[in-house]
Amino acid sequence: MVVAPPHGTAFEAAIQVNPINSHQYSAYLRQDWCIGAVPHGGYTSAILYRLALTHFAHTHPLQYRGPATPIAMQLTFLRRTAVGPALLNVQDVKIGSRTSTLHVTLTQPKQSGRGVGSEGAVQEEQELKIAGYITVSPAHAEVGLTAPTGWAPLPMPARGSRPDGGVDLVALGGSGRDGEWERIQLPFPEFRRATQHVDLYSPRQPTTMAAVDQWARFRPEGDQTARWSNEALVYLTDTFPLALSGLDQRAATAEGGGEAGGRHWYPTVALNIDFKKRLPATGEAWLYSRVQTVSVRGGRTDLGVTVMDAAGQVVAVATQVGLVVSASRNLGRRPKL
Amino acid sequence: MVVAPPHGTAFEAAIQVNPINSHQYSAYLRQDWCIGAVPHGGYTSAILYRLALTHFAHTHPLQYRGPATPIAMQLTFLRRTAVGPALLNVQDVKIGSRTSTLHVTLTQPKQSGRGVGSEGAVQEEQELKIAGYITVSPAHAEVGLTAPTGWAPLPMPARGSRPDGGVDLVALGGSGRDGEWERIQLPFPEFRRATQHVDLYSPRQPTTMAAVDQWARFRPEGDQTARWSNEALVYLTDTFPLALSGLDQRAATAEGGGEAGGRHWYPTVALNIDFKKRLPATGEAWLYSRVQTVSVRGGRTDLGVTVMDAAGQVVAVATQVGLVVSASRNLGRRPKL
Repeated sequence: MVVAPPHGTAFEAAIQVNPINSHQYSAYLRQDWCIGAVPHGGYTSAILYRLALTHFAHTHPLQYRGPATPIAMQLTFLRRTAVGPALLNVQDVKIGSRTSTLHVTLTQPKQSGRGVGSEGAVQEEQELKIAGYITVSPAHAEVGLTAPTGWAPLPMPARGSRPDGGVDLVALGGSGRDGEWERIQLPFPEFRRATQHVDLYSPRQPTTMAAVDQWARFRPEGDQTARWSNEALVYLTDTFPLALSGLDQRAATAEGGGEAGGRHWYPTVALNIDFKKRLPATGEAWLYSRVQTVSVRGGRTDLGVTVMDAAGQVVAVATQVGLVVSASRNLGRRPKL
Repeated sequence: MVVAPPHGTAFEAAIQVNPINSHQYSAYLRQDWCIGAVPHGGYTSAILYRLALTHFAHTHPLQYRGPATPIAMQLTFLRRTAVGPALLNVQDVKIGSRTSTLHVTLTQPKQSGRGVGSEGAVQEEQELKIAGYITVSPAHAEVGLTAPTGWAPLPMPARGSRPDGGVDLVALGGSGRDGEWERIQLPFPEFRRATQHVDLYSPRQPTTMAAVDQWARFRPEGDQTARWSNEALVYLTDTFPLALSGLDQRAATAEGGGEAGGRHWYPTVALNIDFKKRLPATGEAWLYSRVQTVSVRGGRTDLGVTVMDAAGQVVAVATQVGLVVSASRNLGRRPKL
């Protein structure tokens, strides 16, 4: 029996990875998952997560007694991706008894994004867009020390209505409010299309860029029944519209501009994800993200994201280096990163 | 005039990178910079930082109006390195106007570490030990938004004697004490040889694993005049003996063991460094590190390190995925990571 993925059929179709041979796969980057004209970095990273799963199932099915899932992803974004077909290549850098490491690349036809992409275009000259390393481990190999560290998000998140200060997620999802939290509408829905696939909640009081909090439900292409899967979690580690709004405001102030100053694009240069806990096969309805920016200097920013589940367990820790550039760089003809 | 590097001649010799051709270089991993039998991950990463600098100076000297320095390093540690010669290969993945990205590898002769290494051994069959991506940018290309984020280490660091709570570093270095801080002796000096190259200070009160603080001066092979350079900073992002002592204690408790339980090795699986500020050419005398562990599960831990200078500016943010294994795995014949 094939169990339907908890993230729903729309996202499943968007992250589909199909084998061409033992070390080459194809994918198709969708219009719905773009920021402006460029597929969202968390979305393309979710495709590469799926690539690692597919590669072990397809090419190394007997390597481990269970699925090998990524424990660490280190990706570098070299050139703007574009809507259309993508070729995925895998090198088996190390196949080990506890962990294995793959080198992965995502390439696209050199002219893609400047004309109409077509399925046949994968035969053309390819350009490297994303590359990196993915370390996988099967759950059964993860034995050894487990210990509490006392870590908690600081400053403390805004309070919900529960006696312990936690958020009542049923109330929040139902009425759109709980304690200091409320549902939010995202800015620039047309440009930031890829970040519209979440139902997002934040504290009413403005926070600093040093600590932006959100609770989110996954709503891919509006699917109200979807839940967070491991692949959807990858998308979430790069989805923090409120933190970007904070950068927007600062950029607008720096430029002395009004609303137009808010039109920025934050391309990811490097994204690293450390997976701390596998999500259950049935997914999670809610995930919390603490997004932290340590410094913004010379048009370059860091974004650290810690994702926790409703039980307070840390699911993933992600860090990225991003640029702060005008939105015109997203839509222009010549990518100059 | 050649200015002597602030990190001193001993470290300079230890991280030497020599061109073989336009995209191949050699290095020699030193005994003094090992944990047990394995060269320290921060040390080998410092060599790869130097590789990026050397490669641009040697092969792309006219690409930028100034040195291209790493802004992001994403390294994966595949197999135990060994004392002896190492071959460094570089691929120019992207040479851009603002940033360039290199793919780098460190390989060693397949039998290295099991016999006596020799300089001639680089001709033998090579085994991939470390691989990753380094993104560089010249300082002049880093233009754009600079904005305060309000970030500060939380919980607050232990107090020094200054009226604002800061540490008087002259007093701390002179008498070994200031406010709540004091000089510390490191555990397991024989096994953790590579971490002996720092003069280290910590709060007297024990801290939690969620936030371990240190102030450190660089003392490579005992050199009292050395200061932190960018390369030495890379070594520092992987040097946090107090955080590892915290893990040691937890591991010992979990095993119900006594002192022997403390004998653990924490090999790095993946190391990511985001460079936020270039250090001055004259180096820095002191650097502060906040080391944070979010969770330890199934023998796998995360370590987040934020390095700041004496003026309170963030210099680098690093994250790593590490394993917690018995020290015997370091010294044994068959690496099984």
